[in-house]
Amino acid sequence: MKIALAQLNYHVGNFESNTKKIIDHIKLAKADGADLVVFAELAVCGYPPRDFLEFEEFITLCEEAGEEIASHCEGIACIVGLPVRNEQAAGKDLFNAAYFIADKQIRSIARKALLPNYDVFDEYRYFEPASQFECIDYKGTRIALTICEDLWNINNNPLYVSNPMDELIKQRPDVMINIAASPFSYQHDDERRIVLADNAKKYNLPLLYVNQVGAQTELIFDGGSMVFDKEGNMLDEMPYFKEYLRTYTLAGQRIEGYSPVEHVLVPDIAQIHDALVMGIQDYFVKSGFSKAVLGLSGGIDSAIVCALACRALGPENVMAVLMPSKYSSDHSIQDALDLVENFGCKHEIISIAEAADAFDSMMAGAFKGLPFNLTEENIQARSRGIVVMAMSNKFGYILLNTSNKSECAVGYGTLYGDMCGAIGVIGDVYKTQIYELAHYINKDKELIPENTIVKPPSAELRPGQKDSDSLPDYDTLDTILYQFIELKKTSKDIIAMGYEEGLVRRIIKMVNGAEFKRYQTPPILRVSPKAFGSGRRMPIVGKYLA
Amino acid sequence: MKIALAQLNYHVGNFESNTKKIIDHIKLAKADGADLVVFAELAVCGYPPRDFLEFEEFITLCEEAGEEIASHCEGIACIVGLPVRNEQAAGKDLFNAAYFIADKQIRSIARKALLPNYDVFDEYRYFEPASQFECIDYKGTRIALTICEDLWNINNNPLYVSNPMDELIKQRPDVMINIAASPFSYQHDDERRIVLADNAKKYNLPLLYVNQVGAQTELIFDGGSMVFDKEGNMLDEMPYFKEYLRTYTLAGQRIEGYSPVEHVLVPDIAQIHDALVMGIQDYFVKSGFSKAVLGLSGGIDSAIVCALACRALGPENVMAVLMPSKYSSDHSIQDALDLVENFGCKHEIISIAEAADAFDSMMAGAFKGLPFNLTEENIQARSRGIVVMAMSNKFGYILLNTSNKSECAVGYGTLYGDMCGAIGVIGDVYKTQIYELAHYINKDKELIPENTIVKPPSAELRPGQKDSDSLPDYDTLDTILYQFIELKKTSKDIIAMGYEEGLVRRIIKMVNGAEFKRYQTPPILRVSPKAFGSGRRMPIVGKYLA
Repeated sequence: MKIALAQLNYHVGNFESNTKKIIDHIKLAKADGADLVVFAELAVCGYPPRDFLEFEEFITLCEEAGEEIASHCEGIACIVGLPVRNEQAAGKDLFNAAYFIADKQIRSIARKALLPNYDVFDEYRYFEPASQFECIDYKGTRIALTICEDLWNINNNPLYVSNPMDELIKQRPDVMINIAASPFSYQHDDERRIVLADNAKKYNLPLLYVNQVGAQTELIFDGGSMVFDKEGNMLDEMPYFKEYLRTYTLAGQRIEGYSPVEHVLVPDIAQIHDALVMGIQDYFVKSGFSKAVLGLSGGIDSAIVCALACRALGPENVMAVLMPSKYSSDHSIQDALDLVENFGCKHEIISIAEAADAFDSMMAGAFKGLPFNLTEENIQARSRGIVVMAMSNKFGYILLNTSNKSECAVGYGTLYGDMCGAIGVIGDVYKTQIYELAHYINKDKELIPENTIVKPPSAELRPGQKDSDSLPDYDTLDTILYQFIELKKTSKDIIAMGYEEGLVRRIIKMVNGAEFKRYQTPPILRVSPKAFGSGRRMPIVGKYLA
Repeated sequence: MKIALAQLNYHVGNFESNTKKIIDHIKLAKADGADLVVFAELAVCGYPPRDFLEFEEFITLCEEAGEEIASHCEGIACIVGLPVRNEQAAGKDLFNAAYFIADKQIRSIARKALLPNYDVFDEYRYFEPASQFECIDYKGTRIALTICEDLWNINNNPLYVSNPMDELIKQRPDVMINIAASPFSYQHDDERRIVLADNAKKYNLPLLYVNQVGAQTELIFDGGSMVFDKEGNMLDEMPYFKEYLRTYTLAGQRIEGYSPVEHVLVPDIAQIHDALVMGIQDYFVKSGFSKAVLGLSGGIDSAIVCALACRALGPENVMAVLMPSKYSSDHSIQDALDLVENFGCKHEIISIAEAADAFDSMMAGAFKGLPFNLTEENIQARSRGIVVMAMSNKFGYILLNTSNKSECAVGYGTLYGDMCGAIGVIGDVYKTQIYELAHYINKDKELIPENTIVKPPSAELRPGQKDSDSLPDYDTLDTILYQFIELKKTSKDIIAMGYEEGLVRRIIKMVNGAEFKRYQTPPILRVSPKAFGSGRRMPIVGKYLA
């Protein structure tokens, strides 16, 4: 039997384009001689559909798309993910499910049992967990079909009390197929490969795995669909961040008909780079916009965002706005202009001096000679926010936010100022990783100006200001942040690593104290296992750690 | 047996104050002759603790607080809610649980089975559902103790496939006790009373119910703790929005020792008023601030927020900033000043003309004679945002957001302008309800100036602008919004109610198109069954309905 895996980029709620794409690939797979073509989890509606699932009409549209897809399955079978209704009176109204379609008929429905409800996942918000499992018999092959998380309960501290494959294996299947919508993080690829290999070994079955690709607002799917033999060897892996269709031959329990790949370990920073480019691209394509604007300071953060935007959208679609103030250093404008020239994007230079003076004068009465402090720094950052938002409003540009994860973490940024934007491009990338990204982008040629990379980071909101005035060096800061945010270590654990107690406590307090700011920041492209946003839900008015 | 119910205001993660409050009320209950005192769900850590629950140290602090509380239970027993560890290898790491403490010992632990995971609730993110249930025997009385949602699965379309009381009833208990953290909405009180009465009737048992009171950022708990006889008659209900301790005598299955209450139906608008006052109050008290600032336009929305803030914080702690532009009408300043005088709060008048002129001049090159449009309107709104944030930064005031639910819904507001603020006071109150609130506040005396109430609503961002230029009348708008947001009706359903098709589709499109704005707005005090914020999770770059 020939099985095609279709690794595609869906768009949440866009039934027209998702259905067309699925039908097109049914035809392509058929042309390729496939007996069965497999699409990802919730392919029909895109993942994550979130509370769209609570609208009756949305489910009806899923069903109609399912029927439309079925009508094209002539001479080829198909597995495709979609939500289906729970016909029982008790329990949630929906299942996260997949149709098995053959001869234009929906022959059976597989339902997901293990519903991820941690980090960015909310599946138990919508879905009832399945409790009954049945293999699919097709052309003499018995297929154990599972959905994503259903295969992930095999470690030593399992999150769920049951294991769907333990039931399905009793029916003596010949092969496992798993369809997924498993979002990217730079640590996820290794973990995924191990979990899938462990399943192949545990159940002594070959395994075909199909993932989604593409970004849905902040969540990025990297693809990386794979096939394994029953000894758990990975036989093939599809490219990351690309749509792909490939057909495999299943001969008994042997997978054939592929060009054997040697798995090339892609460095994390390259994965992050590609993920962010796709994240920007899909944000624009799927929301129907093409042009971006950003504030370009001459510093490294906005330089990286500008570089990524030029790669994602084309430099002709990127407008960099240079907004010097009286505290801007001489080299800032030049560094920014060098970058603009290297990438070939558009730019404007708009000084914020007039606005800063106007607010000084307006507030003079209320502030009655009180000294310059953070207030006036924020006024500058917010005046820049008004300028870039004015460019956005007047010309239909979408504003890219340039805050990095280190500053988001400690609240080193001005709400309604530099924290503005439609999408946070590097809000899940620590400052130390930003430097890695710069070197990666510059690997063949100096595109990010060297001076931007080597100069000490500064917000340039008062004379001679440097990040290091109020923060430790970024190596130290990022290590402490990673231990606290990604690993959820306590201050005690982190101090035991050799960091100074006062510093550790101060940083953790800064992180928790900035929760109210992060609540109001744009969605952030997720590239780590723990990004700010829907995957990290902290109380705002909470006392613990504050 | 005498049972005291303690309806208290906890603070998420504030173990020191929660523990002290619980111990104080153990003493008060003991002084009142109680054999048992009952505290709410997750009283020890406050509700909702959110991802604090994922920190190992947080759970240890809960355990330590539990031990401390136990050590004070001499001569009185206590039921108190807290998270406990799941000792099994499989499943989530925690249970949502309650200690039963007697003679200073934790005698038993009740675990919650039904975990709400809809709207604002995420309990399955943290907790394993319980599958074993045991009654508590104490002083000859057998108590069926359940936690909040455990009693809510009794309607015709149950959300869960099991019912913990169906197990507990087999052990022939004498009385039911339910501890809750059930957030307020203006529709919730009636529903709650019916559900609890239905339980008393179904299981033919008296029922004592304890709820939390107080606000945790956006979630407001109204209290309303109640006792029922086994025929389902409500015998007593504690006051809303107040801490309360009351002792009841359980004689066999009869509840005595209370002054019988006649339930007075509190009008929705009065409940909303009191909820918002408590919401403001607790935001400030629990975050350690005392002073508020807001922009006061002369319109009804900011007038209501100012009135509520004065009641919550005292007028001496409220700073109203009047920020006229060249488009402000003559009466706006006067209406705002009348309000300031009526409530006695502080005020400043700061014109934004200079800022608007500065930005006009700064953008002149980039905008090369393009006509005045929404861009310049937004510049004005954002200049006001800078002014009130400058007041906030300079003086430590907390900015109150004044956007109402109708405008949040359709995106009629400027991001980083009038959508700024630390907390959205009326973001869950439709414009038509804002008028009701004004009449309620004015019920004894004209406090909100009559002119503010009767004049046509306007953003005053261009000459002669009125809300009705681009929106239907608010009665129509709010009805359509309520059908779509609260009831999740489709456009087809709403059109069938007699509304014009083009209008309905345009409004639904506006609501969905404003998702990116709402993502970046402050937390909103929740008073309806479906507020914007954590209870409504919509895709941003989604196609459906957009």
